Amino acid sequence: MEREGKIKRKSFSIKRAAQKTQERRGVLDNQISSQVNLRVAVSQMDFVVGDFEYNANCIENCLNDATEFGADLILFPELALTGYPPEDLLLKDDFIAKNKKLLRHLASSVKGVVAVVGYVEKVKRNLYNSAALLYKGKVVGNYRKMILPNYGVFDEKRYFVEGDEPTCFVMNGIKIGLTICEDIWDANGPGKQVCEEGQADILLNISSSPYFKGKGRSREEMIRQRARQYKTHIVYANLIGGQDELVFDGHSLVVAPDGTFLAKGNVFEEEMIYADLKIHPKSAKQNSKKSINSSIKTYHVPTILNRVSKPVILKRRVYKLGATEEVFKALVLGTRDYMKKNGFSEAAIGLSGGIDSALTAVIAVKAIGPENVVGITMPSNYSSRGSIDDSEVLAKNLGMRTISLPIKEVMLAYDKILFEVFKNLPSDTTEENLQARIRGNLMMALSNKMGWLVLTTGNKSEFSVGYCTLYGDMAGGFAVLKDVPKKWVYRLSKWINKNEGYALIPETILTKEPSAELRPGQKDTDSLPPYSLLDKVLARYIEEDQGMEGLRGIGLPMKEVKKIVKLVDNSEYKRRQGPPGIKITPKAFGKDRRLPITNCYEP
Amino acid sequence: MEREGKIKRKSFSIKRAAQKTQERRGVLDNQISSQVNLRVAVSQMDFVVGDFEYNANCIENCLNDATEFGADLILFPELALTGYPPEDLLLKDDFIAKNKKLLRHLASSVKGVVAVVGYVEKVKRNLYNSAALLYKGKVVGNYRKMILPNYGVFDEKRYFVEGDEPTCFVMNGIKIGLTICEDIWDANGPGKQVCEEGQADILLNISSSPYFKGKGRSREEMIRQRARQYKTHIVYANLIGGQDELVFDGHSLVVAPDGTFLAKGNVFEEEMIYADLKIHPKSAKQNSKKSINSSIKTYHVPTILNRVSKPVILKRRVYKLGATEEVFKALVLGTRDYMKKNGFSEAAIGLSGGIDSALTAVIAVKAIGPENVVGITMPSNYSSRGSIDDSEVLAKNLGMRTISLPIKEVMLAYDKILFEVFKNLPSDTTEENLQARIRGNLMMALSNKMGWLVLTTGNKSEFSVGYCTLYGDMAGGFAVLKDVPKKWVYRLSKWINKNEGYALIPETILTKEPSAELRPGQKDTDSLPPYSLLDKVLARYIEEDQGMEGLRGIGLPMKEVKKIVKLVDNSEYKRRQGPPGIKITPKAFGKDRRLPITNCYEP
Repeated sequence: MEREGKIKRKSFSIKRAAQKTQERRGVLDNQISSQVNLRVAVSQMDFVVGDFEYNANCIENCLNDATEFGADLILFPELALTGYPPEDLLLKDDFIAKNKKLLRHLASSVKGVVAVVGYVEKVKRNLYNSAALLYKGKVVGNYRKMILPNYGVFDEKRYFVEGDEPTCFVMNGIKIGLTICEDIWDANGPGKQVCEEGQADILLNISSSPYFKGKGRSREEMIRQRARQYKTHIVYANLIGGQDELVFDGHSLVVAPDGTFLAKGNVFEEEMIYADLKIHPKSAKQNSKKSINSSIKTYHVPTILNRVSKPVILKRRVYKLGATEEVFKALVLGTRDYMKKNGFSEAAIGLSGGIDSALTAVIAVKAIGPENVVGITMPSNYSSRGSIDDSEVLAKNLGMRTISLPIKEVMLAYDKILFEVFKNLPSDTTEENLQARIRGNLMMALSNKMGWLVLTTGNKSEFSVGYCTLYGDMAGGFAVLKDVPKKWVYRLSKWINKNEGYALIPETILTKEPSAELRPGQKDTDSLPPYSLLDKVLARYIEEDQGMEGLRGIGLPMKEVKKIVKLVDNSEYKRRQGPPGIKITPKAFGKDRRLPITNCYEP
Repeated sequence: MEREGKIKRKSFSIKRAAQKTQERRGVLDNQISSQVNLRVAVSQMDFVVGDFEYNANCIENCLNDATEFGADLILFPELALTGYPPEDLLLKDDFIAKNKKLLRHLASSVKGVVAVVGYVEKVKRNLYNSAALLYKGKVVGNYRKMILPNYGVFDEKRYFVEGDEPTCFVMNGIKIGLTICEDIWDANGPGKQVCEEGQADILLNISSSPYFKGKGRSREEMIRQRARQYKTHIVYANLIGGQDELVFDGHSLVVAPDGTFLAKGNVFEEEMIYADLKIHPKSAKQNSKKSINSSIKTYHVPTILNRVSKPVILKRRVYKLGATEEVFKALVLGTRDYMKKNGFSEAAIGLSGGIDSALTAVIAVKAIGPENVVGITMPSNYSSRGSIDDSEVLAKNLGMRTISLPIKEVMLAYDKILFEVFKNLPSDTTEENLQARIRGNLMMALSNKMGWLVLTTGNKSEFSVGYCTLYGDMAGGFAVLKDVPKKWVYRLSKWINKNEGYALIPETILTKEPSAELRPGQKDTDSLPPYSLLDKVLARYIEEDQGMEGLRGIGLPMKEVKKIVKLVDNSEYKRRQGPPGIKITPKAFGKDRRLPITNCYEP
């Protein structure tokens, strides 16, 4: 079963399900002894890094919901108590202590359901990324994540020690294995041990698995494969929400041993997911009180549940998002959460008349509403009339305010100050950068005075080659399109117009040739190859770490390719000072790609 | 023995040592059979990340030097071939391949000496942080670092797999153990195994151990302790040079089993270090061809060396720097290397008349010479006459140029643009920030036009609480004082004047009350507690990760302390967009301290 909206807003269909649950409870236990039914709940909620009060409250609401709907077992995501990833907050003793205190408090709230809650466990000086098994006011079991990711955006070995005990628990005669996130990505990891040696009937996985495009599909494939391989049901709980550079997509899964989906969580939405599992315990004829294999740690949860005699297959609405819509939703949620969790209610966007700022505006309006987004146009002598008009049409279509601040006079004032120092020197990018920086200053002045968050509009292609001005168009709090290649900027914009049924983004914006409009007649292709080719080089060089050999055959002369590679490498200092933005590709700039600024390597 | 200056500039004393070496070579081997003499060399050079050609060349020069001076064994720092830390360059296959090719090439250059060279080893898909033993054109042995640091500034588990074989090699009947950096910090690490189980007579350690104040002393203590504990000679080779946020101090060491220093490398200087060791092999009566303990991997280097019959105790000049001078040298080297390795020869500094910009200017002048540093004064209506005069006196004392760019007219032009939007709104920090950003723009315009690197002048105390303007005074390529608390800014400045023997930094700069001069009569203490108290709170909160309990008893009301903590936490977004600067404390901002921006934790 799936529910719409937040935990508080219960839909009619849920009320009906609740009634059915009551009915089920009335039915006497007449099940065939070899089959056990289990109702599982997954809390796919937006837990916030460091907001213990909010997280505890959210967990309690979910516990109540799960109890109300007759669930036997509820899963919360990895490190639900602290939010994910807490990064160096984990080095603070008081942070760890608060997390421990909260776990004890939560245990006392757990009554008619067994709960699996992700938290930080401290033993002597070691930290573990752990799952606590809570039941009837107590911590009745515990599992320590065994495989710690320390690549890409992950730094788990910075904080945690690996667990070394594959772990199961037995409830209602069913053996249930516990794993945390990365554990299940390794086919030969602890999941295999608990399912094969330990003969677990169900494998649980609590995750905080960040999104990038295509991840959802590969995750589904992996989970199905594990279910078939391990011959178990798998219940996979994933976090949703934005956290700095990361966005978590939810997309929790319940899968049968044959790989069929019993339930799927919505993508990029908070919800409680319920599924009924019919289990024929592997260990039915064995003494479930005794561990089958001594290498597997096994806890026993007193069997008082087992109330689900007639499984109610709850109606399941499965979202299948197209690849473009999925990315759009990621950007919207990432932007909304960054603003909300950092205390911003309004945003300002510099509207240039180009496609990047148009797409950013659409995402912002979708994230926080048109009444909370202000478009700033800052025309110079080089701004075309068309660009100004296009911005106005876009803003009107979106229903957002605009403010116009022409920058000519400030440009003249700077020229005057610098006249003496710059005389006899030719005009170059200095003057272009200065224009961009005047705009940056104005955006920041508005931000300071009005409390608006400045959303920057640069895309990944520009950011890669440094086709952007530090402290100019890069000035702002959040870079919505930071990881969106130009090709995808077009793809998303076209999808938006198609989805809206009209040119929400004016057609002229989509068709005009890209230009920074920082000097007369300027075009992006004056300095860069066409984006279609540029993006191919960038994907291979940045996302795949290819060397020069791997960059052949794209359709660009190698001299051009080398130039691009050099631009990417030489722009590291700029990127290091840029605002964070949402990761949507397999390798984003930021903590996903850690290159030195001082880097004399020539590929 | 120690040498002055770079490898190319050989001093007279070295030539004399060379003659002595020739003499030694003529002497027949008449040593007592139980004592073996060994001359070791340490290459304490500034290897550059990714600059394979430079590094190879430097290694070859050192090999020649070591051969010329009759060394039997030469050590290069950890990952000397690639530079340290190469970060995500390690994910590039072509980078690893180039490193492998270079190692083979270097092996062929090794003739009359055994060399221990740090490099990246790839086996199947695994990378190891390894030491190759090179001799007579071949790789005759290899060791893989067993303890990988993954805390603070280190991310080694992101790249490398841990080695699992403690390793020795036997040459001239002496057993020599190999370790790499972190290995030796653990008293029970592989050093213990090779020295106790393996009975090594000498323990080698090749390091790239970054500096922070006090590290040198604790490193010396640790090495002496290991020597006594393991009952061996220890030869410790450390990198020198600046790499982004890090500066390596060299300070290589040769220590006898009783803990006495046989040689010390200079701090923050490149040099070759030589020492003669008299060894009474533990395994003298055993067959050195046979490994004593099977758990220790042992290589045998054909014994052809052993030429040092009469040990020449080379004259040893030991530097003992005071704590302040050491930090000053770290800042100078870090700044010089950042500029040199990133291709900048000239720097610009905004001179405010305050102590931070004065100290930055002194460091820059020391690093690259007064002819390469330009001071920019950018007075506004709020700049005091004293500040402008002080800047001029300082620049004159330093022998550097200045340019004056009054910002009044640009301020007026901005006011005019923003008049309509800001009317009826009270004046606040917006206007102050705008001034700082005008200055930032001017600095960047000069940088763009002239190719000067902008050195920012903010200190760690300001940076901690966000008492600085993003894109304003924070705009620039390198933040020299980023990790220097205000207290240390004074300490360094006073030391400079004392060391120079006159007020190089004008006394008025040292005594005036700190002010940003962004509004009439402004003082830092309007918004912040006195720096003496602020710095105490910051040291405990940032460097020691103390919670509120640990912040009591500093002499500030807890309400004030809480305010500071909140300022620190809320400034994370600013710091994330700041330029890199040199780490000189146990915990610097940057990759040393990784806190989320989106962080709802309240200590």
